[in-house]
Order: sequence, then structure tokens, then C-alpha cells
Amino acid sequence: MIKLYYAPNSCSLAPHIALEDAGATYKAILVDFSKEEQRSPEFLALNPKGRVPALLTGNGVVSENPAILSYIAQSFPDANLAPIGDPFAFAQVQAFNAYIASTLHVAHAHGRRASRWADSPAAIADMRNKMPEVVAACFQTIERDMFIGPYVMGEQYTICDAYLFTLAQWMEGDKVDPTTVPNIHAHREMMLQRPPVQRAIQQESAAQ
Amino acid sequence: MIKLYYAPNSCSLAPHIALEDAGATYKAILVDFSKEEQRSPEFLALNPKGRVPALLTGNGVVSENPAILSYIAQSFPDANLAPIGDPFAFAQVQAFNAYIASTLHVAHAHGRRASRWADSPAAIADMRNKMPEVVAACFQTIERDMFIGPYVMGEQYTICDAYLFTLAQWMEGDKVDPTTVPNIHAHREMMLQRPPVQRAIQQESAAQ
Repeated sequence: MIKLYYAPNSCSLAPHIALEDAGATYKAILVDFSKEEQRSPEFLALNPKGRVPALLTGNGVVSENPAILSYIAQSFPDANLAPIGDPFAFAQVQAFNAYIASTLHVAHAHGRRASRWADSPAAIADMRNKMPEVVAACFQTIERDMFIGPYVMGEQYTICDAYLFTLAQWMEGDKVDPTTVPNIHAHREMMLQRPPVQRAIQQESAAQ
Repeated sequence: MIKLYYAPNSCSLAPHIALEDAGATYKAILVDFSKEEQRSPEFLALNPKGRVPALLTGNGVVSENPAILSYIAQSFPDANLAPIGDPFAFAQVQAFNAYIASTLHVAHAHGRRASRWADSPAAIADMRNKMPEVVAACFQTIERDMFIGPYVMGEQYTICDAYLFTLAQWMEGDKVDPTTVPNIHAHREMMLQRPPVQRAIQQESAAQ
């Protein structure tokens, strides 16, 4: 059975939603950051990078959200979560997810994890202070240039929706006003009404 | 005809190599950063993010290296550049490329482009000073946990090789000693002997 290693309030919510969307049989396993479980020998044996999400499949572990999300879409084709067979349409899905991973999520990480890239308290404070502006600019780029509507890719729900929703949930915590990106804000509200999204959130809340 | 918008010494070398690997008919178009062409209205109409690479296809533009590389692999299946039809094997390719894009390349960017994430000269200097250590740690993670050899994914050459090679070319500039990651170092030397790699590099050198 597929096992999703996740932490609450992290980007592992995206594949958690996608597994629910897919109707997959899986087990969600909490990695407790408050106990530093992501640094435990057991977890590092699964994912040497010490990060969630990690997806344990019958063939081995998949890490990195863009890879995990596409893996779920490709493994459960009946759920129609990505246009895998259409190179251009699939590339749009991948480009969106790559932007979330390497630009938006990275911008967000400069709030609480700036010590990855600098040592001095002053530099870390500078990054934390600039973070809301950088994150807001990413959301504006998505709103203006990437989001089609009502779903990210238009009429068809895809794995991009689970990923955008996950990071959009952090807006208030990142001091970004959701009303400045009305389409993303409406998308977030719509996602909250979807039963697979509700089930993923409830599972993570119940486990805490 | 496919058009690759590239800049010399940037990560657009990876899809340039992949297009050569694929035997694609394409045109490589220089985006001259010294003239700020990436901010020109013409280029922003193609890629509103103002970044290279951007791949103009018959269907529209693809951005973000992990998406572009998979698009090339999927569009030229005879070149066998990624195991698209095998969800787990393809996920490993995607996870590798996602790590390059969202961790290694991001670490590198803190050297010259730290102003994306902080404003004060002191913070920018701190990030620049820490960058070699962070980039080196990424290469060590790849060497230890991700690189199989002789190619990234083992015996089969994939798009991962073009992407790793591209960033490995920056090691000396990032003050990382290539001999500390001997497998990646040997891979880089092997890649430099491949005619598609040589053609991509020569095209970019000749256009400058």
C-alpha cells in the first residue's frame, strides 16, 4: 500500500489531496517535526533529504512535490488528474508545479527557514521582513499570467489545483492579503468545498 | 519550428543539450541579458516571468526547465531521453530535476541574485558568502544519494544528465571544488565528450 509521509501545515497537503482525488488506497504517516522525526535514522533511510512529502510506493520512494503529484496522476489515470498523454498540456501542468516549487515555495521559505541561505541574525531578519512582498509578487504572477480559471488549467481540475491551494492556505501567515488576488482567493474557497480536500485536511487535523 | 530562447552561461544550456540529444529541428535564439532583452516587451509577451529558458512550440510557450526537459523527452520518444511510460522511473527523473531546480539552482542564485530575497547590502553579502557552502552541500547530496552512475539514472542517459551537467559547469564559479564530488566530476568530463553537448556549447559560444 502507498504510504504518504506528511507533516501538518506543510506542502505535503498537496499530494495528500491528490491521493484523495485519485481514490487511492494509502496510509498517511505523520512525521512529527516537533520531535525532529524528519531527522531520525528511520526517516532519513526513506528520504535522505529529510523533507516531507515522501511517497513510499511498491517500487520505492518518490520525493519532491512535482514528481509525487505527477506520479499520482499517472498511477491513477481514471481520476484524470493531469493530461499525461498530451506533451504540451502536460508541460503546462509541470511548468505550473515547477514554479510553485522553485519560486513561490522558495519565497515562502525565506520567512521561517532563511538560515538555509545566510548566517547572521540581521540577514535572516531582512529576508523574513521582505518575504511577504516576494510571496505576494509570486501570487500576483500566478493570478495574472498562469491561472486560467475556474481551475488552474481551466475547466479541468488537475494536480495543480491541489498544489496551488496548499500554498494559498499560507497567505495570511505570510502576511499576504488574499483579496489582492481575487481569482486565487475564489479558487481557495471553492477547493475548501471539495470533499477530497476536506478529507485530507481532516485527517491531518485529527492526527495532531 | 521549435525555438529555444536562451542566454549563455544560464540554465538554458540544459534544454539546448536535450534538443541536440533529441535530434530536434530547432532554432536557438539569444536573449541578451547585457541589453536587458529578458525585460523587453517582445520577450515578456512570450514569457511574462522574464526568464530563460523559454521554449516556443507549435502549441505555445513552455517555461521552467523540468517542464521543458520532459516536454522534449516526450515529444521525441525515439531519442529515449526519459522513461515517460513508467510512472515510478519517470518520477525519479522528475524528482531529480525538481531538486536541481528548487534546491541546487536556488542555492546558486543566492550568490548573484540574493536581492530577490533581501534588500540590505549586508544581508546580500551574507548570502553571497554562504552560497559556496550551500551549493557544495547540494552537490554532496546528489553525489551521495541521487547519482547512480555512470549516468544520473544508471546505464541509461536521460534529461537529468543534461541538467546536472549544466549546473556542474558552474562549480568553479561558485567556489566548489569539483574533486570533492568525484562521480559528478567524472560525469562532467564524460558529458564534455558527447557531440550533442559540444554542439550546444559551440552554438552558444559562437553567438556571443
